[in-house]
Amino acid sequence: MIRLSDSEREVHMAALTKWKHDAVRDAIHRQYLFKDFNQAFGFMTRVALYTEQVNHHPEWFNVWNRVDVTLTTHDVSGLSMRDISMAQWMDTVYCSMIDKASG
Amino acid sequence: MIRLSDSEREVHMAALTKWKHDAVRDAIHRQYLFKDFNQAFGFMTRVALYTEQVNHHPEWFNVWNRVDVTLTTHDVSGLSMRDISMAQWMDTVYCSMIDKASG
Repeated sequence: MIRLSDSEREVHMAALTKWKHDAVRDAIHRQYLFKDFNQAFGFMTRVALYTEQVNHHPEWFNVWNRVDVTLTTHDVSGLSMRDISMAQWMDTVYCSMIDKASG
Repeated sequence: MIRLSDSEREVHMAALTKWKHDAVRDAIHRQYLFKDFNQAFGFMTRVALYTEQVNHHPEWFNVWNRVDVTLTTHDVSGLSMRDISMAQWMDTVYCSMIDKASG
């Protein structure tokens, strides 16, 4: 696993419009909002199963309907493609849940 | 639901030896450590089901094998018996999981 260069990160981050880069930690973070705790923890459970499968885990904070996620790769002390893939996957799951919730 | 007085809080906190009181927020917090993410998220899942049952939810942060929990009761802007009961319940579940993990 290789740490992303600044230019590589910028290319990938351009598609992750809801994520912010933390330059101090070389991490990315995003806040997800749900309709209630049930939906928020449902999201966390889907993510948890996936993270075990790919052996890459987030830092996350939850209160009620809110989930704050931070992604970084400890092995490279910064961002790797594992974080980009994880962010894309989480966004896809989030969109599918929110669509269903409001549909 | 009634906010605990200082003396009431001190009586209950005497039994919650691993929990610390945050006087600024009138909240209590504790860190739980597990052997891995599987066990940590297993704990969170048990707590999540319970919190829905009693309609009282924690603020919590997780990274890998660590779960940091903060409890307070927003309706009373401080601690109530719901927080004390939740802390006791979480400690009991934690003990049962840790015992089994090392047994």
